[in-house]
Amino acid sequence: TIWLRSYFTREVYDRTPRPASSGVRCQELHAGGRSPTQSPSAAPERGTFSRVTPEDLAFFRELLPGRTITDPDLLEACNVDWLKSVKGSGEVLLKPKTTEEVSQILRYCNRGNLAVTPQGGNTGLVGGSVPVYDEIVLSTALMNNVLNFDSASGILSCQAGCVLESLSVYLEDRDYIMPLDLGAKGSCHIGGNVATNAGGLRLLRYGSLRGTVLGLEVVLADGRVLDCLTALRKDNTGYDLKQLFIGSEGTLGVITAVTILCPRKPKAVNVAFLGCESFEQLLQTFQRCRGMLGEILSAFEFLDRDCMRLLNTHLKLANPITDCPFYIVIETSGSNPTHDEEKLHQFLEETMRSSLVTDGTVATEESKIKALWSLRERVTEALTHDGFTYKYDISLPVERIYQLVTDMREHLGDRAKSVVGYGHVGDGNLHLNITSPAKDPALLASIEPFIYEWTARFRGSISAEHGLGLKKRNYIYYSKSNMAVDLMGSIKILLDPKGILNPYKTLPDDLQ
Amino acid sequence: TIWLRSYFTREVYDRTPRPASSGVRCQELHAGGRSPTQSPSAAPERGTFSRVTPEDLAFFRELLPGRTITDPDLLEACNVDWLKSVKGSGEVLLKPKTTEEVSQILRYCNRGNLAVTPQGGNTGLVGGSVPVYDEIVLSTALMNNVLNFDSASGILSCQAGCVLESLSVYLEDRDYIMPLDLGAKGSCHIGGNVATNAGGLRLLRYGSLRGTVLGLEVVLADGRVLDCLTALRKDNTGYDLKQLFIGSEGTLGVITAVTILCPRKPKAVNVAFLGCESFEQLLQTFQRCRGMLGEILSAFEFLDRDCMRLLNTHLKLANPITDCPFYIVIETSGSNPTHDEEKLHQFLEETMRSSLVTDGTVATEESKIKALWSLRERVTEALTHDGFTYKYDISLPVERIYQLVTDMREHLGDRAKSVVGYGHVGDGNLHLNITSPAKDPALLASIEPFIYEWTARFRGSISAEHGLGLKKRNYIYYSKSNMAVDLMGSIKILLDPKGILNPYKTLPDDLQ
Repeated sequence: TIWLRSYFTREVYDRTPRPASSGVRCQELHAGGRSPTQSPSAAPERGTFSRVTPEDLAFFRELLPGRTITDPDLLEACNVDWLKSVKGSGEVLLKPKTTEEVSQILRYCNRGNLAVTPQGGNTGLVGGSVPVYDEIVLSTALMNNVLNFDSASGILSCQAGCVLESLSVYLEDRDYIMPLDLGAKGSCHIGGNVATNAGGLRLLRYGSLRGTVLGLEVVLADGRVLDCLTALRKDNTGYDLKQLFIGSEGTLGVITAVTILCPRKPKAVNVAFLGCESFEQLLQTFQRCRGMLGEILSAFEFLDRDCMRLLNTHLKLANPITDCPFYIVIETSGSNPTHDEEKLHQFLEETMRSSLVTDGTVATEESKIKALWSLRERVTEALTHDGFTYKYDISLPVERIYQLVTDMREHLGDRAKSVVGYGHVGDGNLHLNITSPAKDPALLASIEPFIYEWTARFRGSISAEHGLGLKKRNYIYYSKSNMAVDLMGSIKILLDPKGILNPYKTLPDDLQ
Repeated sequence: TIWLRSYFTREVYDRTPRPASSGVRCQELHAGGRSPTQSPSAAPERGTFSRVTPEDLAFFRELLPGRTITDPDLLEACNVDWLKSVKGSGEVLLKPKTTEEVSQILRYCNRGNLAVTPQGGNTGLVGGSVPVYDEIVLSTALMNNVLNFDSASGILSCQAGCVLESLSVYLEDRDYIMPLDLGAKGSCHIGGNVATNAGGLRLLRYGSLRGTVLGLEVVLADGRVLDCLTALRKDNTGYDLKQLFIGSEGTLGVITAVTILCPRKPKAVNVAFLGCESFEQLLQTFQRCRGMLGEILSAFEFLDRDCMRLLNTHLKLANPITDCPFYIVIETSGSNPTHDEEKLHQFLEETMRSSLVTDGTVATEESKIKALWSLRERVTEALTHDGFTYKYDISLPVERIYQLVTDMREHLGDRAKSVVGYGHVGDGNLHLNITSPAKDPALLASIEPFIYEWTARFRGSISAEHGLGLKKRNYIYYSKSNMAVDLMGSIKILLDPKGILNPYKTLPDDLQ
């Protein structure tokens, strides 16, 4: 395997001619204690952080009485990720309620060189939200107040620990919706969403958090509070510092509050579930869809036949249409039910007539909409029942996304149990999942670096929306130039010179 | 006047209780050579940069034969801003064609401690794009190639010097549009748009450049090329470094190429020009509009009666409707002409019936659309004929934006010739302009800091979209906390330790 500052990624990025002698694939293991045979996603050695002492605990207990958790049973949940794929051994869980408390915690930990893992809903998929060793877990669970909502502008201001679904309910009562939606909405926190730059199902329509998040309040590693919590659509007074923290996975600061621009609640929502004979036809359907549904298109998602098989087998979900190699979920959201239905009708008529789509069903009623959406949203869950799952979250030019699945199937032959593809067509974002009866290092060695090299060849991203966390940190060079990674390292040092914030995450080992 | 780290802004931001003794307004003049009576927008003393020598010129001429301009007549235009309000004395204008040339220029200048002002279309309004002293002007004018356009995804990749209008024409031929549009489109460069985080007329619909710019190539102060030129909608592999350069006004690096996500060209565009009796009614109309036009609303702009007077007087533009205190420009863009007309019709009927709007006219034909838009777009031009103009670009909660105009009129009494308000209601962005027969320091002293204090009181931004440049740099503390400004300074030092890039701009004097 090649993974660190490899020849391959150098070739992609380096614009200066390579000297002849460097034609050898170089394998540089900058990481401390990992042996060359260990996976790049394995944990590096523990950093030289202090261990929590009884004096530390006394400090925390005075600051957070009843909210300093050390009971091993209660610590279990915050040490294991949602996929149960990584497990830390954190001995303290802190549950602050206020920004001031977060500030005091970090000031103390920074002085004492104690490492801290910020944690929201702990729904991440790359091992970013749990301790690797004995890091203190700083949970935002009790920071769950809405601070303000301006119904004229749709600008919501809230603490970082608000659960996404609770915010959605709060807003729907006020005729607004959140600009993002994702499968984990029932558990994930808005602070975690922002810290990981979550994408999800509405990005096609409402854009990324980089545009909709208007302000952040962040506690820096040394406890200072950075107030960028403006509630303005526009502010060009200097550098947009909050962007540093969006997608930094808790490595640069702890987000304590968020202001976010929310769209009006649509008056009409329709969902169509369609079948296609080929991915080429699916792409043509997407183009037609963008033209004909235009501004009311709010999602264009897909799953392949193998996903449907897993949904049938493991979750007993029935296919509402005839068997097809590819399925599409199209959602429209608009302000005029009659107009939306007309647009959708015209679109469906044309795609059926031109045989782009072979079968389909449409839902306007809420329960049926939910049922259709669950076919897309529950693929992740179905996979967990199929065996040990190797998960990949790849961004590519949209016309390439399924070719990677086909190539991977061919490459792996019968070594994998299932190779399935689904994801966000509208965003060029493929979720490629490979299952095997049990953990299988030989299979993994066939998947990686094959998948990363394939992705880098087309200048894709090896993490479209899941982030790097612990698991993908060392693969960063496949999608970022050495210089960009070096600059990331400089910014980390600037903001967290002792490296106490979420260590072993996001940055590759050679920069930790 | 109070302006640097003033008591006032401290009070707004500082959450810790203020000690009783600090109740005195403190006036700290950190800037080098400026006397206390000089305006905070005046230039500070020249930095300790080298002066251009004959050897330097020889280097540039060899690198850029025929594109190293020293003829004083040809230098005139690049030394004066569009408003003719600031004038530098740059003696060299460099016109690179490639990123490699920009890299060589900066490497050379950084080594020799030569200051550089990057310049695009030179259409900025805050003195950010021209030299203050003898900075070398690095123009992107010859970097005007489209690098790639993917008609499946709508992702455009181009050099920084492409003129916005040329890109619009290029895209319209391919059934797409640029996600931004502004009055200066015929001259401004996309690189400059990104460097200043330009807002403009389509932000309400397509969001800010922070969401639509997908990738950047940037040459850093020392000549290294930072390649973040991905063409992906999603990429969560580490910190989003390109965001640092969006809106940094050329102080952190020179943007050499841009990838940007472009929306489909709408099949139907309608413009309505309406009159309202009060700003309260205008705001109610906006709410109704958001509900009824929903996803097809692409602009909601306003101008007041005084703007109309200036358009009549100085540009001989006729008012197409009856005289009113407030005028609204509403634009819809959609994929179905029949649906759009129906929505607009229903909306107009209801607002007329409920007397929110007193008169109005609608255009669907291109020439009439342009004529209606010009009433909004040419206010800036009309103002230049009215006298010396003090320009302000304020972000506020939308319900406050006109109150500032009213308060300012009352505050100034008959000391001003005209006090006019117009701008982007949908974005909470007011352009407040005050004219006087000639430059009038006494009038200025009445306007400032009044306007900045007023804005800070409601946590507004003292520069919504124009940036800080030279003119507004020292007012940054009205909208940013001391800590945020300090962090900006640290980032500047990290990326441009010698401070050669666009000196005297964006950062306040105490951090230069």
